[in-house]
Amino acid sequence: MNISRLGEFGLIERIRRRVRVGRGVKIGIGDDAAWVTNATGSSLVTADLLIERIHFDLRWTSLFQLGYKSLAVNLSDIAAMGGTPAFALLSLGIPRDFEVAGLDEFYRGVNALAREFGVTIIGGDTNVAGSLIISVCVIGTPPRRPVRRRGARPGDDIYVTGTLGDSALGLRLLKENPEGLRRSRLARALLKRHHQPDPRIEAGSLLARRNLATAMIDVSDGLVQDLSHICHASRIGAVVWNERLPLSRAYRRIAAREGTRYALGGGEDYELLFCARPHNRARVEKLQQRAGVAITRIGTCVAAAGGVTVVDGMGLPIPTLLKGHDHFKRADRAERNSSAL
Amino acid sequence: MNISRLGEFGLIERIRRRVRVGRGVKIGIGDDAAWVTNATGSSLVTADLLIERIHFDLRWTSLFQLGYKSLAVNLSDIAAMGGTPAFALLSLGIPRDFEVAGLDEFYRGVNALAREFGVTIIGGDTNVAGSLIISVCVIGTPPRRPVRRRGARPGDDIYVTGTLGDSALGLRLLKENPEGLRRSRLARALLKRHHQPDPRIEAGSLLARRNLATAMIDVSDGLVQDLSHICHASRIGAVVWNERLPLSRAYRRIAAREGTRYALGGGEDYELLFCARPHNRARVEKLQQRAGVAITRIGTCVAAAGGVTVVDGMGLPIPTLLKGHDHFKRADRAERNSSAL
Repeated sequence: MNISRLGEFGLIERIRRRVRVGRGVKIGIGDDAAWVTNATGSSLVTADLLIERIHFDLRWTSLFQLGYKSLAVNLSDIAAMGGTPAFALLSLGIPRDFEVAGLDEFYRGVNALAREFGVTIIGGDTNVAGSLIISVCVIGTPPRRPVRRRGARPGDDIYVTGTLGDSALGLRLLKENPEGLRRSRLARALLKRHHQPDPRIEAGSLLARRNLATAMIDVSDGLVQDLSHICHASRIGAVVWNERLPLSRAYRRIAAREGTRYALGGGEDYELLFCARPHNRARVEKLQQRAGVAITRIGTCVAAAGGVTVVDGMGLPIPTLLKGHDHFKRADRAERNSSAL
Repeated sequence: MNISRLGEFGLIERIRRRVRVGRGVKIGIGDDAAWVTNATGSSLVTADLLIERIHFDLRWTSLFQLGYKSLAVNLSDIAAMGGTPAFALLSLGIPRDFEVAGLDEFYRGVNALAREFGVTIIGGDTNVAGSLIISVCVIGTPPRRPVRRRGARPGDDIYVTGTLGDSALGLRLLKENPEGLRRSRLARALLKRHHQPDPRIEAGSLLARRNLATAMIDVSDGLVQDLSHICHASRIGAVVWNERLPLSRAYRRIAAREGTRYALGGGEDYELLFCARPHNRARVEKLQQRAGVAITRIGTCVAAAGGVTVVDGMGLPIPTLLKGHDHFKRADRAERNSSAL
């Protein structure tokens, strides 16, 4: 049997069952980051591997943006646990004919984000490779109690930070009409969200410190897919109100006809998706100011383990046609073939 | 200018200058592992990226061995700082048609070593890739004072654990005559050292705890090359006594005619190479028993910054023709194209 028949989630489960669990592991495989303790302290740790032509395409991204984003997606994983990133290891596989100027550009992108969040690059590995390979490992400081994917209960509210779908829409515009995109300020704003996502460190950290989030994940695969991870881990179902999904002005202007399609399934938003008890509604709302990002209530957790249901204004289910993205089974989406263990 | 003109060490230096150094970094880029502290404690961290056909070739290694070795080379980096490994993140890029049985085999190899040293796999990332890519990050517990590459002084003794050259010799035998190798117990013993190197955790840890090593590194690129890293970092030179190099019985039997060639330049021994003050000679020697590995004094540190000189029994320099391996400038050695930052 080969890997593609096993499928992505079968693969992750198989790996999870095959690795030994030792002392000091408070959270292991299966969440946004691991939480470990040893003799000297406690850390959150996460890693991502990005491969040219699988996860990125140098036709559609500059090296500055690639450096920025490689770090950003890992910081986002730390944010989703409520932690604060501190250190990063960056390993590169580099083609022998790669331009040094391009490498400098890549590191400028890494540093731009690292500086913003006080993250230091502490090491890594450089290699010759046939194509560009980027492996990032980030170590962060956990809150007193990191927020997991499990922990949501029926009746909990569902929230998301920022706006959804901009990243996927921006990428589509770029691919369809790079010239037109350059002329449109709105389209450029969307694309920036694809290339330089904002890890929601402050929001995640506040939610954890104030014990408000019962479950949390960052939106990398798409809202429905990532919410279904929370549902699975928490053994609940979820109802999402389609009309409440937060869409940016640029999204509304450019893709009004396509409705919430990109917001529901687009992925790579790197916003935080979390659940909270209804009695904490006012406290969650109040958080927006300090977190520097909007927080929108988009649904509710239900008892039935029927996964995610998206409903319209009348409460009627909308067929989303989003069966969830499986990297190994399907090869049709070049930008999202990765999955954190 | 492209990367290959810059060369490996130029590249590492360029990266080192381009990343910001922040708080909490006690040792950053340029040693075997980084040493960091944050609000919750102190850790050693190291990472390696292994790429099919660059660092390994599935014609010459089983997946069990590959899993074992992928972890072993990282544990060895922790050993070289005097630390104890605790956790590992393992990210894989896997071809879509990869056999599940092969993946299980890989994890059996990882687990065999992890169990031996009490290391837990806490996460990582799985991806689709064109060829097999393995990215490992290991987090360890530092000793009170981690041992760096700098710190050796003229007059210090130079030691190495175990025996040298077995790994490179074993690999050569395998490539030249796989059938013959299978029939020779000695040759198989050499090859096992290539496929399943022993990270010298106990030796490294004892040397650090007892404050005996003034500088330390693990032998991955070859004795002369790695000793020159110590020389460079410590701003000293080194004299190595060719006749004192520790060779295994198998090495002597099989490659007697080729002298110490593999021991000096072969690489991938993953033994510890360290310096110590002469007045600690008895204490270093005594360590062997507890560390479970032979420790051999092979040379002495000198003031001249002339790099590494290998001398014969008469004290006359031997031309080693080992100019140091540069992964980006030369493409002739498929197994060692990596370098830790």
